[in-house]
Amino acid sequence: MKIGVLTGGGDCPGLNAVIRSVVRKGVQEYGFEFVGLRDGWLGALRGTVMPLDIAAVRGILPRGGTILGSSRTNPLKHEDGLRRVQDTLAANGVDALIVIGGEDTLGAATELNRQGVRLVGVPKTIDNDVAGTDYTFGFDTAVGIATEAIDRLHTTAESHMRTLVVEVMGRHSGWIALHAGIAGGANAILVPERPFDVDQVCAWVKNRFKIHYAPIVVAAEGAVPKEGQMILKDRSLDEYGHVRLSGIGEWLAQEIEGRTGTEARTTVLGHVQRGGTPSAFDRWLATRFGLHAVDAVRDGAFGTMVALRGTDIVRVPLDDTRGRIKVVDPSLYDEFEVFFG
Amino acid sequence: MKIGVLTGGGDCPGLNAVIRSVVRKGVQEYGFEFVGLRDGWLGALRGTVMPLDIAAVRGILPRGGTILGSSRTNPLKHEDGLRRVQDTLAANGVDALIVIGGEDTLGAATELNRQGVRLVGVPKTIDNDVAGTDYTFGFDTAVGIATEAIDRLHTTAESHMRTLVVEVMGRHSGWIALHAGIAGGANAILVPERPFDVDQVCAWVKNRFKIHYAPIVVAAEGAVPKEGQMILKDRSLDEYGHVRLSGIGEWLAQEIEGRTGTEARTTVLGHVQRGGTPSAFDRWLATRFGLHAVDAVRDGAFGTMVALRGTDIVRVPLDDTRGRIKVVDPSLYDEFEVFFG
Amino acid sequence: MKIGVLTGGGDCPGLNAVIRSVVRKGVQEYGFEFVGLRDGWLGALRGTVMPLDIAAVRGILPRGGTILGSSRTNPLKHEDGLRRVQDTLAANGVDALIVIGGEDTLGAATELNRQGVRLVGVPKTIDNDVAGTDYTFGFDTAVGIATEAIDRLHTTAESHMRTLVVEVMGRHSGWIALHAGIAGGANAILVPERPFDVDQVCAWVKNRFKIHYAPIVVAAEGAVPKEGQMILKDRSLDEYGHVRLSGIGEWLAQEIEGRTGTEARTTVLGHVQRGGTPSAFDRWLATRFGLHAVDAVRDGAFGTMVALRGTDIVRVPLDDTRGRIKVVDPSLYDEFEVFFG
Amino acid sequence: MKIGVLTGGGDCPGLNAVIRSVVRKGVQEYGFEFVGLRDGWLGALRGTVMPLDIAAVRGILPRGGTILGSSRTNPLKHEDGLRRVQDTLAANGVDALIVIGGEDTLGAATELNRQGVRLVGVPKTIDNDVAGTDYTFGFDTAVGIATEAIDRLHTTAESHMRTLVVEVMGRHSGWIALHAGIAGGANAILVPERPFDVDQVCAWVKNRFKIHYAPIVVAAEGAVPKEGQMILKDRSLDEYGHVRLSGIGEWLAQEIEGRTGTEARTTVLGHVQRGGTPSAFDRWLATRFGLHAVDAVRDGAFGTMVALRGTDIVRVPLDDTRGRIKVVDPSLYDEFEVFFG
Repeated sequence: MKIGVLTGGGDCPGLNAVIRSVVRKGVQEYGFEFVGLRDGWLGALRGTVMPLDIAAVRGILPRGGTILGSSRTNPLKHEDGLRRVQDTLAANGVDALIVIGGEDTLGAATELNRQGVRLVGVPKTIDNDVAGTDYTFGFDTAVGIATEAIDRLHTTAESHMRTLVVEVMGRHSGWIALHAGIAGGANAILVPERPFDVDQVCAWVKNRFKIHYAPIVVAAEGAVPKEGQMILKDRSLDEYGHVRLSGIGEWLAQEIEGRTGTEARTTVLGHVQRGGTPSAFDRWLATRFGLHAVDAVRDGAFGTMVALRGTDIVRVPLDDTRGRIKVVDPSLYDEFEVFFG
Repeated sequence: MKIGVLTGGGDCPGLNAVIRSVVRKGVQEYGFEFVGLRDGWLGALRGTVMPLDIAAVRGILPRGGTILGSSRTNPLKHEDGLRRVQDTLAANGVDALIVIGGEDTLGAATELNRQGVRLVGVPKTIDNDVAGTDYTFGFDTAVGIATEAIDRLHTTAESHMRTLVVEVMGRHSGWIALHAGIAGGANAILVPERPFDVDQVCAWVKNRFKIHYAPIVVAAEGAVPKEGQMILKDRSLDEYGHVRLSGIGEWLAQEIEGRTGTEARTTVLGHVQRGGTPSAFDRWLATRFGLHAVDAVRDGAFGTMVALRGTDIVRVPLDDTRGRIKVVDPSLYDEFEVFFG
Repeated sequence: MKIGVLTGGGDCPGLNAVIRSVVRKGVQEYGFEFVGLRDGWLGALRGTVMPLDIAAVRGILPRGGTILGSSRTNPLKHEDGLRRVQDTLAANGVDALIVIGGEDTLGAATELNRQGVRLVGVPKTIDNDVAGTDYTFGFDTAVGIATEAIDRLHTTAESHMRTLVVEVMGRHSGWIALHAGIAGGANAILVPERPFDVDQVCAWVKNRFKIHYAPIVVAAEGAVPKEGQMILKDRSLDEYGHVRLSGIGEWLAQEIEGRTGTEARTTVLGHVQRGGTPSAFDRWLATRFGLHAVDAVRDGAFGTMVALRGTDIVRVPLDDTRGRIKVVDPSLYDEFEVFFG
Repeated sequence: MKIGVLTGGGDCPGLNAVIRSVVRKGVQEYGFEFVGLRDGWLGALRGTVMPLDIAAVRGILPRGGTILGSSRTNPLKHEDGLRRVQDTLAANGVDALIVIGGEDTLGAATELNRQGVRLVGVPKTIDNDVAGTDYTFGFDTAVGIATEAIDRLHTTAESHMRTLVVEVMGRHSGWIALHAGIAGGANAILVPERPFDVDQVCAWVKNRFKIHYAPIVVAAEGAVPKEGQMILKDRSLDEYGHVRLSGIGEWLAQEIEGRTGTEARTTVLGHVQRGGTPSAFDRWLATRFGLHAVDAVRDGAFGTMVALRGTDIVRVPLDDTRGRIKVVDPSLYDEFEVFFG
């Protein structure tokens, strides 16, 4: 049996660990052959492939990124997408695919599977918002990096008695913000799932200063203020003269300064959250996902993705997760309100 | 209501995070008062207590160890133990206890609860072997430290083409060895749950050298060779002339050298695995355990301990976990055999 | 003898290590007394002081920030500044000051010393640009954090085949950019000391893509393009309609995208570079600076600052360093040009 | 011109960074060719070489260990050693060598150079005890790892109120012990340069307990007690019945327990100190050493080694450093005595 492997979407610590365990188990235990499709679905469209054997995956376990490259290409948005993917598979003698990706990549996989492409999915995203799995790999690494940054910012905030707003990743869900904020001892955590009240945030900030400590506010990049509160003081124009909104972190720091009369600064963590060596947790999870994905292919369990349920790896129909994002439950968020302010 | 808090057994990253969240929620949300019992059950026996209010728990979230001190004292092995504990509680007006500890500390808690002491347990151990919970806090930190050490040892092993045996914590269970070994890309992982065959280990070692890579063997301190294989070449005598066995790591390195004719070295990670700042995962888990333990006290759910089940915190009867240790499942261990050798 | 201690300017890992070693040696060896002036020169103006004994400095060695607080206040820019400082010293029985700060703070110290205030300086700045010393503490920590970030960004850059521009601290000097860029394997390093040619940077970027690797460009925040190259495509207007320039990193990423037709992203490391626990090197240097500063006070060597020369700590007249900044030597910068592109 | 490169002695973080910068500059700037000799002098004896071009050194900057392998072989202790080295050089058309190593490797280099082999030395050792240079690369990484371990051990020591003895590398010199001990806030630091008084150490330990803190004792592996104090309570017999001394750390912990009646534990850091990614400082230093070593070859400055002097890289005659070890100066050690106890 010959299996094609591809990684799609934003890169994520642990991708290489999945690739390695897929190949190690597939070759050593089942005698499968493998081929890598380059740059996600783009390689499937273009027919660009690379050899993928045990020598190719040596030493990649601790390395961030993906040796296969990635892209955000959706094959179904290209003319003849399905046919071109099928041609690539046929030309390379590929019997089945292992597709490692987030919402978008797996969404395309679901559709292609419906149209007859035999494949198994592996969920990945540092944002942790793929439905159907307790955690995705990459998330723990991102939370660790963000927490370490918050630890560092505490000391600089205290020394200058100013608020520090930390903008972390999470456009549609607040998992990184919530986990890193709680782990880092933040005084306010703002997530996309719950529009925030700027006045409440400022009250928390003032309260913190009152007891002679400096506030840390952690905001997911997708966090938004309550309706009516986004006053565009900080508007700026792009080259076409359109209003361009700066990030929520910068906006918030300005609001805090304006409304409380105390100093505030912003740090946008950005891409460092998704790079570098995966944490031990993510290496463990990614490795197990890879082992179980190969088993799923062997069992002909196409149209499923592997998922974490407690401490078990299970199979979940791709259809069940399609178009759904796993967001932060309100009751979980409320669990932590005692730490705000 | 006044609650006593104690931490028992070996120290563990995350203890302070539990104490902090217990006090923050108890005081701010329910108006409880708190008192700390010093050095685990020892303080309960001796009546040594310390004040525990919000000021006392400020800034302790990222700090390893425990501000309350710890000990391995078992109150039930002291004459009048129960009465002395009850006296301490009465003398300090304590209505209920929150007991944070591992197997032994919670075992004593279970017995005291049967005899009428109102208490709620919080499981902790870096070894991850408390029954009834998916994970204990402290474990992720220990695995992270061990994995980073293994990462480092790979380069020195390769440079000198020698085997490195890494002895990690785990007297009764192989959780740290298995997780860190998989995350670190070990070529053999030895756990107490499965007596190992020295010849098999040496075959793996030789196989690894054959492809020009240097082997890493991860051994839990409680790992043992198959019956008959522990030949005491390395016996040494203690001051009374008794045979004293050196650790399994050292023994194994000698065996590998003797049986394969290749160089081997040992590193015993020791206490660094249990110290220092907790990982983000452990801070999150410890914080949630603390919040839910206070809720359990408020609800009068005495005789239970909080536990992780998937992503939920649940309550488990202390009686159910008593005297049981959570060991590595054989099928989980076998999942990874493709990586050995 | 009673000594006042103050920390001024931006906070910097190692400040607490200096304070601790000053107090430990002063009290234990010479029987000096100490008092802390709060928030840099602001405390000297306002007379806000805090007790500073051995208990106060316990456990602060590994902690970032400063227990004394800091500010950018210049006492000489306040009416009656000198007199008010002298009043504070007199009111608290302070015989001499130890002033820990960068260019500005030490500049004020130099002037006050001329006017009769007895003081010894300790140079600090993460930027490493204080004249007269080989290194300042805080710099090594900042370089370490920036290097780790660059390590992480390599993997995400490779996975998506895009340029990553990393903006690091350094308004007037390129020390952090140069050290972190070399340590991180950057393909271009831009420093304030040498205006850069955007076309050259783009040529390097294209060259890197040619060999199928993704470029990392490290830019000090004070780096500037050659005259005429700053075309304001990315102009934006502040609330008064004035053109507001975004940071150099963002500008450069836009230029690279526009001129090469390849993707580019920016990460601004910001405040995380100045927070958190100091590196071992910085703790060592800060501790030695503190020990020698106390000796200088004991010796009556007022008007000097301690400095690192090779592996020795020496005394340098404050006057000699006044108004000078230590910039990157052109020949040092040129040493590394082989790595560009 | 064709240059051979070899790395000898114990591996050390930064070796690959030297190799990379040697090859990058040699090839790109001077058009030199390179060849790697495998496993130190062993490869020179056996004629085992590997190609060394720009592709071979890609991506190795952050990697610990050495891609060339290493050994402790001394060519001059082999019959015909000189001739065999010369034959290897001739057979591969090698005009000159760059020899990266510590005391022993450079000692052999000095002798070979006297006998006509054209070579330039690069000092390396995590121990920092090569004479003639302010620092060697690898040392800063080792100190950083040891300091982080001490940070971790503080919390476990405090929680159990026991002494922790940390044994670090340093057979002949106490540099790692001194730097890491000071950076880690140790209460006693024991170095080979100064035989220690066990009673003094125990007095320090007791003093520390008196103020309710737990002592950390850092001991270089080569530290020895004063004459007469090594009472062999802990003797053990090796397989031939000879007395075998356990390490100084273990011995000391036993003495402290016996003499003070308080608990003590030992951690032997071992090989983790020499593995893994080099610190930013070491990558910087190693890279500069490499660049300057190539310049020395181009200039025909054979018989020299590159060295750090302040912030400059200089050339030092190999003869000057031969047979000398750089030990810790007594006055430097005494600088820190205020922190003991």
